[in-house]
Amino acid sequence: MIQIGIDYYPEQWDRSMWEPDIAKMAEMGVDVVRVAEFAWGVLEPEDGRFEFGWLDDAVDLIASHGMRVILGTPTNCAPRWMYVDHPDTVQWDRDGRPTNLGIRGHRCQESATFRDYASRIIREMCKRYAGRPEIAAWQIDNEIEINHCTCPTCTAAFKAWVKARYGTLDAVNAAWGTEVWSGQLTDWGQLTPPLMRQGEGFQPDWYNPAYYLDYERFCASSTAGYVRFQTDIIREYDPDATITTNTCFGGDMMPGFHEECASLDVASYDNYPPVTFSADEPHSNAFGLDFVRGFKRRDFWIMEELGGQMGCWGPISPALAPNMLEGYSLQAVAHGADLLSFFRWRTASTGAEMFCHGLLDHANIPNSRTRALESLVARLKTMPGLDDTEPVSKVAMLYGADQEFSFRDQRQSDGFAYWDQLRLFHDACMNLGVGVDVIEQSSDLAGYEVVIVPSMIVCDPEVVSHLEAAAKAGATVVVTCRSGVKDMNGNCVVGRPLPGLLADMCGCHVLEYDPIGRARRQVRTVHDTTLAVTSWCDLVECDTAGVWASYEDRPYDGIPAITCNAYGKGFVYYVGTVGDRDLYRTLMGSIMRERGMAHLDDLPAGVEVCERSGEGGTYRFFFNDTMDEKGLMVDGHLVTLEPLGMAIESDEGWK
Amino acid sequence: MIQIGIDYYPEQWDRSMWEPDIAKMAEMGVDVVRVAEFAWGVLEPEDGRFEFGWLDDAVDLIASHGMRVILGTPTNCAPRWMYVDHPDTVQWDRDGRPTNLGIRGHRCQESATFRDYASRIIREMCKRYAGRPEIAAWQIDNEIEINHCTCPTCTAAFKAWVKARYGTLDAVNAAWGTEVWSGQLTDWGQLTPPLMRQGEGFQPDWYNPAYYLDYERFCASSTAGYVRFQTDIIREYDPDATITTNTCFGGDMMPGFHEECASLDVASYDNYPPVTFSADEPHSNAFGLDFVRGFKRRDFWIMEELGGQMGCWGPISPALAPNMLEGYSLQAVAHGADLLSFFRWRTASTGAEMFCHGLLDHANIPNSRTRALESLVARLKTMPGLDDTEPVSKVAMLYGADQEFSFRDQRQSDGFAYWDQLRLFHDACMNLGVGVDVIEQSSDLAGYEVVIVPSMIVCDPEVVSHLEAAAKAGATVVVTCRSGVKDMNGNCVVGRPLPGLLADMCGCHVLEYDPIGRARRQVRTVHDTTLAVTSWCDLVECDTAGVWASYEDRPYDGIPAITCNAYGKGFVYYVGTVGDRDLYRTLMGSIMRERGMAHLDDLPAGVEVCERSGEGGTYRFFFNDTMDEKGLMVDGHLVTLEPLGMAIESDEGWK
Amino acid sequence: MIQIGIDYYPEQWDRSMWEPDIAKMAEMGVDVVRVAEFAWGVLEPEDGRFEFGWLDDAVDLIASHGMRVILGTPTNCAPRWMYVDHPDTVQWDRDGRPTNLGIRGHRCQESATFRDYASRIIREMCKRYAGRPEIAAWQIDNEIEINHCTCPTCTAAFKAWVKARYGTLDAVNAAWGTEVWSGQLTDWGQLTPPLMRQGEGFQPDWYNPAYYLDYERFCASSTAGYVRFQTDIIREYDPDATITTNTCFGGDMMPGFHEECASLDVASYDNYPPVTFSADEPHSNAFGLDFVRGFKRRDFWIMEELGGQMGCWGPISPALAPNMLEGYSLQAVAHGADLLSFFRWRTASTGAEMFCHGLLDHANIPNSRTRALESLVARLKTMPGLDDTEPVSKVAMLYGADQEFSFRDQRQSDGFAYWDQLRLFHDACMNLGVGVDVIEQSSDLAGYEVVIVPSMIVCDPEVVSHLEAAAKAGATVVVTCRSGVKDMNGNCVVGRPLPGLLADMCGCHVLEYDPIGRARRQVRTVHDTTLAVTSWCDLVECDTAGVWASYEDRPYDGIPAITCNAYGKGFVYYVGTVGDRDLYRTLMGSIMRERGMAHLDDLPAGVEVCERSGEGGTYRFFFNDTMDEKGLMVDGHLVTLEPLGMAIESDEGWK
Repeated sequence: MIQIGIDYYPEQWDRSMWEPDIAKMAEMGVDVVRVAEFAWGVLEPEDGRFEFGWLDDAVDLIASHGMRVILGTPTNCAPRWMYVDHPDTVQWDRDGRPTNLGIRGHRCQESATFRDYASRIIREMCKRYAGRPEIAAWQIDNEIEINHCTCPTCTAAFKAWVKARYGTLDAVNAAWGTEVWSGQLTDWGQLTPPLMRQGEGFQPDWYNPAYYLDYERFCASSTAGYVRFQTDIIREYDPDATITTNTCFGGDMMPGFHEECASLDVASYDNYPPVTFSADEPHSNAFGLDFVRGFKRRDFWIMEELGGQMGCWGPISPALAPNMLEGYSLQAVAHGADLLSFFRWRTASTGAEMFCHGLLDHANIPNSRTRALESLVARLKTMPGLDDTEPVSKVAMLYGADQEFSFRDQRQSDGFAYWDQLRLFHDACMNLGVGVDVIEQSSDLAGYEVVIVPSMIVCDPEVVSHLEAAAKAGATVVVTCRSGVKDMNGNCVVGRPLPGLLADMCGCHVLEYDPIGRARRQVRTVHDTTLAVTSWCDLVECDTAGVWASYEDRPYDGIPAITCNAYGKGFVYYVGTVGDRDLYRTLMGSIMRERGMAHLDDLPAGVEVCERSGEGGTYRFFFNDTMDEKGLMVDGHLVTLEPLGMAIESDEGWK
Repeated sequence: MIQIGIDYYPEQWDRSMWEPDIAKMAEMGVDVVRVAEFAWGVLEPEDGRFEFGWLDDAVDLIASHGMRVILGTPTNCAPRWMYVDHPDTVQWDRDGRPTNLGIRGHRCQESATFRDYASRIIREMCKRYAGRPEIAAWQIDNEIEINHCTCPTCTAAFKAWVKARYGTLDAVNAAWGTEVWSGQLTDWGQLTPPLMRQGEGFQPDWYNPAYYLDYERFCASSTAGYVRFQTDIIREYDPDATITTNTCFGGDMMPGFHEECASLDVASYDNYPPVTFSADEPHSNAFGLDFVRGFKRRDFWIMEELGGQMGCWGPISPALAPNMLEGYSLQAVAHGADLLSFFRWRTASTGAEMFCHGLLDHANIPNSRTRALESLVARLKTMPGLDDTEPVSKVAMLYGADQEFSFRDQRQSDGFAYWDQLRLFHDACMNLGVGVDVIEQSSDLAGYEVVIVPSMIVCDPEVVSHLEAAAKAGATVVVTCRSGVKDMNGNCVVGRPLPGLLADMCGCHVLEYDPIGRARRQVRTVHDTTLAVTSWCDLVECDTAGVWASYEDRPYDGIPAITCNAYGKGFVYYVGTVGDRDLYRTLMGSIMRERGMAHLDDLPAGVEVCERSGEGGTYRFFFNDTMDEKGLMVDGHLVTLEPLGMAIESDEGWK
Repeated sequence: MIQIGIDYYPEQWDRSMWEPDIAKMAEMGVDVVRVAEFAWGVLEPEDGRFEFGWLDDAVDLIASHGMRVILGTPTNCAPRWMYVDHPDTVQWDRDGRPTNLGIRGHRCQESATFRDYASRIIREMCKRYAGRPEIAAWQIDNEIEINHCTCPTCTAAFKAWVKARYGTLDAVNAAWGTEVWSGQLTDWGQLTPPLMRQGEGFQPDWYNPAYYLDYERFCASSTAGYVRFQTDIIREYDPDATITTNTCFGGDMMPGFHEECASLDVASYDNYPPVTFSADEPHSNAFGLDFVRGFKRRDFWIMEELGGQMGCWGPISPALAPNMLEGYSLQAVAHGADLLSFFRWRTASTGAEMFCHGLLDHANIPNSRTRALESLVARLKTMPGLDDTEPVSKVAMLYGADQEFSFRDQRQSDGFAYWDQLRLFHDACMNLGVGVDVIEQSSDLAGYEVVIVPSMIVCDPEVVSHLEAAAKAGATVVVTCRSGVKDMNGNCVVGRPLPGLLADMCGCHVLEYDPIGRARRQVRTVHDTTLAVTSWCDLVECDTAGVWASYEDRPYDGIPAITCNAYGKGFVYYVGTVGDRDLYRTLMGSIMRERGMAHLDDLPAGVEVCERSGEGGTYRFFFNDTMDEKGLMVDGHLVTLEPLGMAIESDEGWK
């Protein structure tokens, strides 16, 4: 059974509410309750004085209603006394100043003092709860961001990381190319994080990008180390503990998720899909789900599933539309979620998130969201084997944290976005009914028929070898523009036309390129289809490859833009430009047909189809990710999907 | 007689200009001259050395021309030597850093050292001028903003305020709900103002809103205390002194005006209406006038009336259109201004405000604005009894500083603005020819037929009692969405449907709500009128109330949006959504008809009608607050109003 | 011969690449190679240890291929060890904090310690290279910005500058009008630069503008002194050295270019014209070229000519369109460039500018830009006498750094821009085939038939005398609105109608003015042409002048906007408003006809015509500064210009 969870904060509610709240959860079919993730201040009200009685009671109460507990380590929010009494525990901002206290996440992840305190509270929790049957799992901290702290401790840690990587300053200078702008380091004391004034024009792109890439790698490594620091403690007390952390995406604060999740058992995700639909932007919440599944290359959990109107750091968001709670929940399941824990039981009445709504409003009366949850639970009960299945994918898409870091630093063209490169291919596959695994770039590629390599700007020769091997063995590999630009130090490759190390397998090379920004041009394919392109135009010359599409407009008319090269038993496509959704759907459809891979050719726009199968059976998910009714033919039958509606076809029929 | 004043800065002009300037003022019919508000540096050029001779001369010169003086305490701008010699007198910014000097308003209002210096200069002024017949009144400081200073003194004052309010940290923690995000305070040393980096993403809405509300209350109280500190000194020397301060509105720096004005005799306002008209935005300068009249619930003064093109912190604004100076002046009078002091005699030739224009340009030759002032004076002379009248209002609108502070912190929906809630109702009344008193929410409601309660998010039980009593006694009370959400600590009320404590008198409750942002929907009224709504949709369920309007669009079609409840001898409306101007005009027109209250039904859009009456007679003001000519029928006669034209009907005919 | 140069950074490339790179340059016809401008870190890897061997080799290699060297002093980027070991060498930002290190330009130009280090490295270079035939010229530092450093040294330097200018604080207070807002300075210790928080609302316009003007004058003087500090050293070693520095424009960081260039032999410019064309904005790269020619009133150099896609502090820009490299290069030549050095040979593979493209991409293969350079060189070879000619101008336009500083501080109307005042007149002349000298306002005006005086807000009586003399002697002088507003202290002139000191020669005065912002109105000329105006409307009254154009719209209909006054043997126009391009073309065309000056009346929009002549012959340049093909009749022949195409007519026919 797919498990249903609830994020609950007993410490925020009067004792008299616990029993009715928990009883109601149980009655609604909830399996697990997540608690304690922000409770440090209640658990340790004074330095060294612990108050676990209330948590004992809460755990017991939950267990007494037949549910289990996911226990959060409360380290995201240390008590105020710790920060004030030990200023070395406070995170510093990117301008090199201690963070103003009073909000959340102020801890310095590297601080030895903080780690002592964190270790002690985690050990206290472990002593009490580790290994107990009531505890389903542990969650480490909360929505951990990459460690951009600039305090003296983190500065020293960065230095140590650089020293460990390069040994000598000569090696550092050589690797980073510090001869530009007289940036040579001649003493380790000169090495600092890249400080940036808040609100001023300086962007990271003014810094040496090789240095910046290594800085981000250090930060990612620091964050992964912080997670490992916690998992190590918990495993000391319960080697069999199931441990996760709730990742969330977006913005410049994303860590290297794969490295972060290495020491965890399950990857988790805070799933807050959009509640409004824009006509302009492709809507692709499914991408995030496939992305998180790739962290551990197995089914994952949702630790926070959208339960109501968002609010806190901006205006309250619109309410969830009809079908939205159920539809998004099932979309998550379709992509591999085996547990969905809703944020949160009841909207907080205090604190900054008092308008970040839970399932229940402050009024505490049944509403459309609680009814939607009941409907969801009932529906999932009809598919008891679902958690014994996994998403099926013959298509892999490679993601690399290096790429994220590099593009975060250096924008390639006005409007060009690394994530769009991934999402556009992903959307195309969804709309062809083809599952995609988004995997770390160095992963084993065995079993994949198609491998998509979006803009691998920092080019790892080992990954290139994997790709060449896969293509030679028969796979279709799709490489896009801005691949092969940089070496592993983050410096541009000189004297070798793009796509650099990938040029051989692509059978073509780039003569020149034009970052056309938001201008629009056209390509014509070998099938005589005209498709719009934007953002980037590589002027490609074929060596052994054939042309799949050429530019139609002056001054590039007739010059190849997309090529296809027979390579070993496989094919390698080079996509030297950026298209709209149509381009990717056309290209991927063509590849599917070429390879004879199963796919759906006539799905309406915005309808996503994917599959889970395994011991628990086979399930096909038809999700209408739009606000309009959609009709589609499945095996000769018309399936009508309401806005945000999900139809599920199983071995036993429609569910 | 309505008094005419001039803001004059003799210290900025060569002595040779004083006599012709002042003679010309007198010739133009000026009654009072405001002086000295920024003159500290001239009055005390060195610590303890005072130079009052020039001011004596200026006062004498003004008096010799038959005019009186409004004397400003010059405390907004202390001399540079004070800040440099006594760094503890310098205001700190919201990021916890001392303000950069060299502009204005750098004083820390709480600094004991500053207060010593301020006290001394005020006492020097009092010794010289207090009680003299030449002195018409005193103005405290200048455009005092709420005290957001974060210096150690203010931090200590904040702590003391919190301690006085709650006694113990346990009580503070309980009141603020600090268990969220481990925000418990365990030592008073941990309590600081909510610091915010300039230019970064952190908004106040990341802070605990209960804490933030109390912080703003402290700041407001600090500001009021600063005003009282000055009035106490002046009254020591002249118990009969008339004391005011010039308030100005807008932005995040507004103090709690009612508390600030408690120790004053007259409320004043710097009246700078817009000089350009946008088709999109409702133009409602009249609101500010009624708002300031509410500070003391009596007629008020304008200390700075728009005298020319604005300039200083942005491009120079367009020139005043024809009729504008006279029209806006009379609009102020219509709403209760008994004194209009124009900013300023002649445009400064030095200093930051050298393009913030006065009546005269630098050229110093008669111009359209000086001619307009002469015309205004001549017209006011025909209405000598006008200052013995007061605006007439049977409609009250409740304002609370708590509401302002709460909405300032936590945005409720994209596009939702507390002030718009007030202004839209106010505009509707103006356009129905119905006067409105905007009063502090805890004011006595006796005598009002209609009481409007816009978005009382922080809900005071005492105010609720007043409202219930008023409705029971026969008044119509209008409550809007986002009322009753929070308790007096600023925390959300749990377990009681909205509008919370107001639900009983409203006879309805909110099932759920949708902050729809800038989306637009429709409601249909009981009179079958369709009206657009936006921003917020409460899904209302009637208990004893009837439906006044329901949503027309899916998915809320048929659900009540606006209700009306018979309550005692009166009625209570609940407006669960936000409309355009049409909605409020329709609703208020309906209420007027229902109650049989006098109003004008066919006023053209943009025409505002209100009345003053009293011993001095009765005057009806017809103001065309648009740039187009308007015609209207008054008592069977066509009245034509030029753009920005004002027609005044008195007992003696048209003026 | 016009010289062709290349910006080359040997220290950034493997030794093995030097020989092929330099050989290829020579083969392509390159004359000079600019080196070493950022090489301090390589030249002095440790304090006092110099490594010149590599530079010796590079210079020798360049010379051995028949080319010469432009040597950069590497002072823009001091080595990191200097900043870390000597914190007093670090620039402070405008908020009064030391700059974060690790990018470039961190040096404090005033720091004695920095100057010692800079002096030493420059002397080392001089000892080695000064006076050698291989050295064609020296470049000082790089793109020097105005010295806004706020460190203690610069604060002291500012104080010293003020003291030197005014002697006493009483004189300072009098000059700055510090009586406003109690800004009197009573101790030199109170005088600081105008500090500004990053990212906050405070703009310079909150500061006293007279103080701010003097601050900018100090900063400009400081920057000029920094340049002189370097030229003095070089001239010690080689009195005949040719010395330049590469200026660049834009933003708030522009120094006073004329003062900066006083100690230089040649003015230089980094010429990065736009690579995309907007329909909205007038495209006027030619203005910058004429502006830089005015720095020394003679032909100039381009030290960095656009060689490829820009990148670094933003997305990579689009590629150069066909004809663009050649067209822009010839445009620079047409306006007086005698040397064009391209930025840069090959795109950097390391450092922040790795996507700021040179002629060669990282791929290092011939491309469209290298082919364009070859074409350019071949074409220039057909005009060997071109460098013995100069642009021909009978029209002067006056620029003053005071004006730039004043308008930078105080915006006059929404949309009003000082630079647009210059550019619009300049564009009009270009499109009439009339050359313009943009000269410093105090320059000798002999020989000019027309003198344009755009918005001389800070009005120097000496300049007024020059202008009066020129007009009396027969010139046509054109004065525009916002002239004559302030005295030389930066304070507004009182008691004298605008345009102040210029009113007499204009024969008119301004009654009032309306900064109408982005609103649009119309004027009608004496020739019955209707033209759009915006931004500013002076209401002009003629004294002796006649009306050239009057407003057509209410409320200003019939009031003069543009006037013409016969003055001595000449004429003085007063343009009391701001127009579109049409207005300036109409006005300047009218003036040309009136004076019987040679001009072209029917040039298509966007086509610029100008002339160089001298001993080397006469050349007329016809440049199509648009993306559309244009045809024009020249001496009865149709000349067709491709997009960005340049046709050159010489004594020997078309080139």
